[in-house]
Amino acid sequence: MKNHIYDLIIIGGGPAGMAAGIYGARENLDMLLITKSFGGQITRKSVEIENYPGFKKISGQKLIQRLESHFKRYKVPVVMEKVTDVKKKGNVFKVCTEKKKEFQTLSVLVASGADPRPLEVPGEKEFIGKGVSYCVTCDGPLYRNKNVAVIGGGNAGFEAALFLSKIADKVYILEFGSKIKADKINQDRIKKTNNVEVITKAGLKEIKGTRFVESIVYQEVDTKKEKEVKAEGVFVQIGSVPATDFVKDLVDFTKIDEIVVDSKTGETKLAGLFAAGDITNEEYKQIVIAVGQGTKAVLSISRYIDKLKNN
Amino acid sequence: MKNHIYDLIIIGGGPAGMAAGIYGARENLDMLLITKSFGGQITRKSVEIENYPGFKKISGQKLIQRLESHFKRYKVPVVMEKVTDVKKKGNVFKVCTEKKKEFQTLSVLVASGADPRPLEVPGEKEFIGKGVSYCVTCDGPLYRNKNVAVIGGGNAGFEAALFLSKIADKVYILEFGSKIKADKINQDRIKKTNNVEVITKAGLKEIKGTRFVESIVYQEVDTKKEKEVKAEGVFVQIGSVPATDFVKDLVDFTKIDEIVVDSKTGETKLAGLFAAGDITNEEYKQIVIAVGQGTKAVLSISRYIDKLKNN
Repeated sequence: MKNHIYDLIIIGGGPAGMAAGIYGARENLDMLLITKSFGGQITRKSVEIENYPGFKKISGQKLIQRLESHFKRYKVPVVMEKVTDVKKKGNVFKVCTEKKKEFQTLSVLVASGADPRPLEVPGEKEFIGKGVSYCVTCDGPLYRNKNVAVIGGGNAGFEAALFLSKIADKVYILEFGSKIKADKINQDRIKKTNNVEVITKAGLKEIKGTRFVESIVYQEVDTKKEKEVKAEGVFVQIGSVPATDFVKDLVDFTKIDEIVVDSKTGETKLAGLFAAGDITNEEYKQIVIAVGQGTKAVLSISRYIDKLKNN
Repeated sequence: MKNHIYDLIIIGGGPAGMAAGIYGARENLDMLLITKSFGGQITRKSVEIENYPGFKKISGQKLIQRLESHFKRYKVPVVMEKVTDVKKKGNVFKVCTEKKKEFQTLSVLVASGADPRPLEVPGEKEFIGKGVSYCVTCDGPLYRNKNVAVIGGGNAGFEAALFLSKIADKVYILEFGSKIKADKINQDRIKKTNNVEVITKAGLKEIKGTRFVESIVYQEVDTKKEKEVKAEGVFVQIGSVPATDFVKDLVDFTKIDEIVVDSKTGETKLAGLFAAGDITNEEYKQIVIAVGQGTKAVLSISRYIDKLKNN
């Protein structure tokens, strides 16, 4: 199989990648999917998902199972690895992985999603796994009857706080801006708890502790005063950074490192290279939007491959 | 309530409209949904749906139920009617219905989908309900052990033929072009039947009969020769026409009457007027893409309303 050339290599096993696999199989594309794991950012969802149309309420884990089993029905070959490099020569792409495997393909769909965005404040790196976490479902249960802080007042932050409010004694939400960005439904839910305090216009300065996290220090944006609150867990929920290193020189990026695509087709500026999901400059990051994007991209890829083969 | 001004009126109860309702409720928008019925084009699906990610296989009817019950959970008021006119004055839209009801709103989402495209050949209108049909699930079962013809070699045509192959004696698929546009998976399935004949480069000329349809006449594109085949049912599956009359003067249209939108946001050229689903110039028409579009549009609308109210 060394010289085998696939029609399509999908990079990423989140909602966009799995949808692409489902549709690609229906288009009879000769595909390979490379991913470190299945589920993408859904794995970090801390509350039940109520906005994937068709499921009134479903846990992240169950939705991943549903998508994964739908995808696996089509028996698309999968390599569980990290992609490190993508190159194009003529019409053929070469995709390399961490373990030095190489694959050839006529098209690539980058759907590798995004990693949590770090705070970049003193104490953050030092205390990872010792109080600092990016995943509430993974680490939240460790903080029973303790004080915790969630950094970020978007949906992810509010959902994290809601999850934590049932476990921790006291939950702080720190938001740098003056306005909360979370959906109203999430804001209302937080209002109904009695142990969550939302602090806006608060810029985190430092995470402090000895062996483990003990407190956080933030600056009030208006007064410039620094304040310290006791917190043994710090959950960072300030968005994500697209994981795009391996296509660095091939495509255009936005200021926040998202891959620029044509929203109708998922095309990047390089023929044969497509992108879908949270890695792109799509305006809104939602599971069902990522699924729609993966679908569009693969239908475009099918046309691209048809043209390539029939010319 | 006569002078009540909604934040949003959604026109259409298909996948895009229902998704918009779900997300709009989560955004706390004051909404009204106006539709003739729920389900949109899914109601005309003639085979099980296998490409809505999350459901390996689900009937059209069941998927509609799932989406409808998800939508209805949010108790968005619904008016079961046809919209006849939309006008804008200042920042306020007026939406009028067939039964002369009038509603006011700050924004409108047009998600009214598309109607089946007619053939416009002699005999078509005369024999509607007497052999000519646009809905295989509705009328297919009437043709047990008879000969039928499906007009159109796209996915809808192939899926219709597959459905009919289990009922009818013989199924013809007529396609005007030289190439079949249906997915490969659908083509393979048709190959496995033993009573479906695909005729390409065939232009339908006439539908003939006395009281009911008895035969069809088509012209071979290459030879210009006319041929007649016996068929008591004719299922028209040549795509759809967007149902856009009521916004005629407000937006831009493509050559095939689709509403031109920004694919990232669902915005039309008129501020406050958005569109989503098969009524738009979105490249690919798929249920999950329509759902994604409805979602994007409502998130854009939420921003629009926020700005309007806070300025």
